[in-house]
Amino acid sequence: MTEQTHVNVTDLSLQDEASLTSGSDSWHVQGLPEQGLEGYMITDGPYGLRKAKDSKSNDVYGSVPATCFPPTAGLASSWNPELTEQVGQAMGEECVQEKVAVILGPGVNIKRSPLGGRNFEYWSEDPVLTGHQAAELVKGVQAQGIGTSVKHFAANNQETERLRSSSDMDERTLREIYLPAFEYIVKHAKPWTLMCAYNRLNGVFGSENRRLLTDILRDEWGFDGIVMSDWGAVHNRAAALAAGLNLEMPPSSSDDEVVAAVQAGTLGKDQLDAMAQGMIDLLEKAKPAMSREGYRYDVQAHNQVARQAACESVVMLKNDDGILPLHKGEKVAVIGEFARTPRYQGGGSSHITPTVVTNALDAFKSAGWNVDFAPGFTLDDAPQSEDLTQEALCVAQSAQKVVLFLGLPEDAESEGFDRTSLDMPAKQLELLAKISEVNPNTVVVLSNGSVVSLTEWLPQAKAVLEAWLLGQAGGQAIVDLLTGEANPSGKLPQTIPVQLSDDPTVMNFPGEEGHVRYGEGVFVGYRYYDSFKKPVLFPFGFGLSYSSFELSDITVEHTGKNAVQVRARVTNTSAVDGAQTVQVYVAPGASRVQRPSHELKAFQKVFLRAGESKTVSMDLSERDFAYWSRTMNDWHTEAGSYGIELATSSRAIVKRVDVTIEGDDKVFRLNEESSMLEWEEDPIGAPILSKKMEELAADGVHLPDDPNTMILFRTMPMGTVVTFSGADGRQVTRDLIASYKAAMSK
Amino acid sequence: MTEQTHVNVTDLSLQDEASLTSGSDSWHVQGLPEQGLEGYMITDGPYGLRKAKDSKSNDVYGSVPATCFPPTAGLASSWNPELTEQVGQAMGEECVQEKVAVILGPGVNIKRSPLGGRNFEYWSEDPVLTGHQAAELVKGVQAQGIGTSVKHFAANNQETERLRSSSDMDERTLREIYLPAFEYIVKHAKPWTLMCAYNRLNGVFGSENRRLLTDILRDEWGFDGIVMSDWGAVHNRAAALAAGLNLEMPPSSSDDEVVAAVQAGTLGKDQLDAMAQGMIDLLEKAKPAMSREGYRYDVQAHNQVARQAACESVVMLKNDDGILPLHKGEKVAVIGEFARTPRYQGGGSSHITPTVVTNALDAFKSAGWNVDFAPGFTLDDAPQSEDLTQEALCVAQSAQKVVLFLGLPEDAESEGFDRTSLDMPAKQLELLAKISEVNPNTVVVLSNGSVVSLTEWLPQAKAVLEAWLLGQAGGQAIVDLLTGEANPSGKLPQTIPVQLSDDPTVMNFPGEEGHVRYGEGVFVGYRYYDSFKKPVLFPFGFGLSYSSFELSDITVEHTGKNAVQVRARVTNTSAVDGAQTVQVYVAPGASRVQRPSHELKAFQKVFLRAGESKTVSMDLSERDFAYWSRTMNDWHTEAGSYGIELATSSRAIVKRVDVTIEGDDKVFRLNEESSMLEWEEDPIGAPILSKKMEELAADGVHLPDDPNTMILFRTMPMGTVVTFSGADGRQVTRDLIASYKAAMSK
Repeated sequence: MTEQTHVNVTDLSLQDEASLTSGSDSWHVQGLPEQGLEGYMITDGPYGLRKAKDSKSNDVYGSVPATCFPPTAGLASSWNPELTEQVGQAMGEECVQEKVAVILGPGVNIKRSPLGGRNFEYWSEDPVLTGHQAAELVKGVQAQGIGTSVKHFAANNQETERLRSSSDMDERTLREIYLPAFEYIVKHAKPWTLMCAYNRLNGVFGSENRRLLTDILRDEWGFDGIVMSDWGAVHNRAAALAAGLNLEMPPSSSDDEVVAAVQAGTLGKDQLDAMAQGMIDLLEKAKPAMSREGYRYDVQAHNQVARQAACESVVMLKNDDGILPLHKGEKVAVIGEFARTPRYQGGGSSHITPTVVTNALDAFKSAGWNVDFAPGFTLDDAPQSEDLTQEALCVAQSAQKVVLFLGLPEDAESEGFDRTSLDMPAKQLELLAKISEVNPNTVVVLSNGSVVSLTEWLPQAKAVLEAWLLGQAGGQAIVDLLTGEANPSGKLPQTIPVQLSDDPTVMNFPGEEGHVRYGEGVFVGYRYYDSFKKPVLFPFGFGLSYSSFELSDITVEHTGKNAVQVRARVTNTSAVDGAQTVQVYVAPGASRVQRPSHELKAFQKVFLRAGESKTVSMDLSERDFAYWSRTMNDWHTEAGSYGIELATSSRAIVKRVDVTIEGDDKVFRLNEESSMLEWEEDPIGAPILSKKMEELAADGVHLPDDPNTMILFRTMPMGTVVTFSGADGRQVTRDLIASYKAAMSK
Repeated sequence: MTEQTHVNVTDLSLQDEASLTSGSDSWHVQGLPEQGLEGYMITDGPYGLRKAKDSKSNDVYGSVPATCFPPTAGLASSWNPELTEQVGQAMGEECVQEKVAVILGPGVNIKRSPLGGRNFEYWSEDPVLTGHQAAELVKGVQAQGIGTSVKHFAANNQETERLRSSSDMDERTLREIYLPAFEYIVKHAKPWTLMCAYNRLNGVFGSENRRLLTDILRDEWGFDGIVMSDWGAVHNRAAALAAGLNLEMPPSSSDDEVVAAVQAGTLGKDQLDAMAQGMIDLLEKAKPAMSREGYRYDVQAHNQVARQAACESVVMLKNDDGILPLHKGEKVAVIGEFARTPRYQGGGSSHITPTVVTNALDAFKSAGWNVDFAPGFTLDDAPQSEDLTQEALCVAQSAQKVVLFLGLPEDAESEGFDRTSLDMPAKQLELLAKISEVNPNTVVVLSNGSVVSLTEWLPQAKAVLEAWLLGQAGGQAIVDLLTGEANPSGKLPQTIPVQLSDDPTVMNFPGEEGHVRYGEGVFVGYRYYDSFKKPVLFPFGFGLSYSSFELSDITVEHTGKNAVQVRARVTNTSAVDGAQTVQVYVAPGASRVQRPSHELKAFQKVFLRAGESKTVSMDLSERDFAYWSRTMNDWHTEAGSYGIELATSSRAIVKRVDVTIEGDDKVFRLNEESSMLEWEEDPIGAPILSKKMEELAADGVHLPDDPNTMILFRTMPMGTVVTFSGADGRQVTRDLIASYKAAMSK
């Protein structure tokens, strides 16, 4: 991009401006060839490119080949932002080759309920893990000169009624749970674009929400990119432009409406200018990469990235008696259709045509393992075949160890609908029960995009690998891990509950009659389970390794008024190379509001050779101690004691160090409704109240003598107390507040 | 009241009108002597009269003697509306004697959380039990020509920040949980007055909420009485009058403001007329009773009513090995200061000066029982005295059975603050542990206004009587029950949870920064525990008897389109006279909304002599199957199958009969946001859509072929589907809706 080619919106006709704020077709941004602006393609794909073969088509299952990296639920489990950045770089390279200017991802909505239909393409129940991981994906892609579209902004946490449902929540919940990942990414990775959500937030559509798209996103956070609509999210083009939406996708042939709105004065010309200029800037930013000719990415290298990412995406949940890794020479039975027909991605707009897929069975062979195989069951809804069962039992019986591949069928989870249960298919569980009886050395490998229930059958498995959906190289990764070529290092990005009915959203998912009440507030996932000491099956942040680790030399030191540095030495105390993820939770002390017992604020994954030690260091700043105050309409860090917890899961706190935080300088102001107690406790208010009470006493107005009565009175607004005592409470309140304001302004 | 004395508001000056809408002092309604209108006294007291000795005083602990009936938590446990009506009659008589025109009660707010500070003076976690009981109290009082003030209208479910906190909830929650008791009482008992709540509802103060005070209360429910403020609840007199509040209490010397508001046109003269006329009508209604001279109520008879009410208020939670009743001749030790110094009422505005109090120890003596006594502990916060412990153990050891009186100290619960735990005082529990070791035949009698935790110590008690707070005759009632003179018949009006953290409000009580989110929606109490199959210690509706009962011949018959009659034969299969309460729950089938698994809709208490049988019959109407539809803004009874459960607690379903309900004739209309699926399923919409799709096809617009894509599309608004297919979705939507409306209007 050179100065010469820069197009200024003020040189354009209204009609041209309007045209820029809508696509030219379902997958292209409109250009202005006469102005030297080329329109580019934008394409789905949070974990790989879904470039439609026919860009006029809406069929989501016809696209050009691209590397299918692990879907987000997997990649999130890596807890490895550097790895995520590599994946982003690879995706960016594929975009350059395919001439895709912007890739529509990452999706960073919070997994509010384990039933959420798109959980497989979201990261976590935690906003810090989500933000830190997704920011690196954005950086990786954008380093190639390709844009990302962080989505879906905001509070898009379910599929049921997703185009019209209103996510109803208070500001604190929004600020502490549903916005922080977006905020972190905007501030740290500067994404070129964001995608607005379909749903309403407190009644206002994502495409028309000026508070979100302008006040918070641009004015507060400093976002300088463009906001596009989710496909079909615009209901009123002028209203959307006014709210801060730059681009409607797909186009709705309504440019004339936009022009008319400006002419009628219902849409400001300045606002249209700003929205259109954003689109021009985007096209100019994309031009260099889009102008590269003949670029070809390294398909093999990208498959290797996918394989490494898949390895780190697997969470080992159980490994009794060290049954894993398998030992060379052991007679191993591989059972389950998934070993031959892997389920490696979810359905909907993220669905990719992979460059190559390796199943686990083939991967075993390539790795030089002779394994016996039986499919065990079919992936359809057909009743279990007795023949398949018998064959599987026969294979299982004659093996030393069984690796049983179980999972959710493809139609169990997709964009477009939410799940209604966490159950695994009954016929698979029946097979597991029978196999574990004939061979107790049974290892289960799970393929599922969202959490499934393990409670009932966990005792039947000696080891469990939660392999999520792993992308095209998942088969190789699983074999790497099973055979000890690689060491499991994934950690759960979300809690696995004992049962669905334990979940804090169970009363409020997926809502009804166009509304979903976020009734649990900030108590999502482990914030609920840990705060109220509820049993879980596997806690947030949990994951086993073939290695063992020790944390030592833990220190927490102040680095500023409300900032600390946490340091710890991590040692691999085993004979196997491996990785541990150190997690830092902040546990607030007494607070004016109800806060979670602790919250993840930082984490670091450390790779350690056998016996090796490294020191990790993580910084916490004022914001890491803050809550969102509705009264202040701002973040507020209270003075007081906070626990700094070093942990290897939300339930495995290795050490807690209590620190004193001075707090910020913000204070709560007394107002007309402040109680007698609040007046008495306020350093400026107390003497003012005292003086006023003396004046009232001089006029014969006294408070009750009785202490029981005063218990009631002290909690009342001061004016009410005065009215009860026989004087004019409203006038006294006015006097008190006037004196207070005068004293404050001194 | 004769025609001649009737005062018409239009004959009054503005100033006089204004004066009528405020008290003359803290406890008197303003009269207009020149117009022949006398001002009368109104007085606190949901379970007895709290008439201040000095009506200028706000001290709540100085009042003239009155019968202290069982506080509401107790009376609610009787599940006996007839008994409650008798209590009401007695209170009405005391009002006549004391020249109190209106008694400020009953309090009918729902016990949303077990921590609610005024739970002792509220009825239940269930609106049907609350409404049916409280309505009879109102009828009983008002039969004496005395008014009641049903309070606190509405959604006043906690004490924390009670004068300013906003209860934030959706309309369905309000309509199904927090309003029905008020609605039932207004429609069935026609209370003379209601008292508005201190708190806000969705941001609007109770005193200024026109939707509540006028639209719903008067226009929907047909209330023709007056609404007074809770004491100090008015923030803006003109705004309150405009909303439908007739009377500000206590007065705030702001009549001039009211006059000025009318003159300035900010308060309609018609509205002030209506509010003042309400006050005139109230005074005229009260005149006959207030004019009776020299009336004296029967103090002894009222104490008997209090005793009978107390008897039925006790819930026997446990009675292992039939340890109760005590047998004459057994050596019984009575331990616990509460047996000598009973706790029989709560603190705050309901606090009564009783006519007489009998403690359990004296009641034992009067009944001819020689019992040994040791106080065991003191009621203050002092550490446990070793001497008291030793004395108690000594007495316990030498007895055949121990009756241990435990409870919450007086300062543990009161108006004005919420509790923060369910724990019993530690020193009492330590004593119980020691006593149960030296004498396993230990019976615990509990005195507490709100639920306490029993989980930890329940195994140490062979029997438990939950005696709540029982009023002045509680000591006699307890002895009647312990000795078998009376038979326990109380049932729990609320769930006793295993632990506080199980409660569905645990994330949202008591709120923060001026707001409390009713995040659990309609899932309050057993509606949560039962719907999600959560363990409880004792379920809603539970209570034991010395008798045994059988339910048989259960039938459910249609009595109308959406109405059924439930009949059952109840037999006392024991040799002891007793009472059983038959409970009818309705269990909805499939629904468009998330409904509780079942809800109490009717109940009947049946007294049966040994061996006797009676048939009970209860009617359910359309409303008993309905939910509140936000979309329809109305009750909606869906067609379908409903379970009718006959039960003796919410967890003891004796029989379930499934019935088919036709449903009401209300239908959901298609609108601009209706999905493709909804169009396809609507009998009128489907052919219209079909025709339109043919027209589009003729223009070359086709939906995708791919079935996976169509899964996504069918859930989208029809217009979005059309836009995706390349046509003008908004225009097509307009066409479709126009055709639909035309078809509907035919």
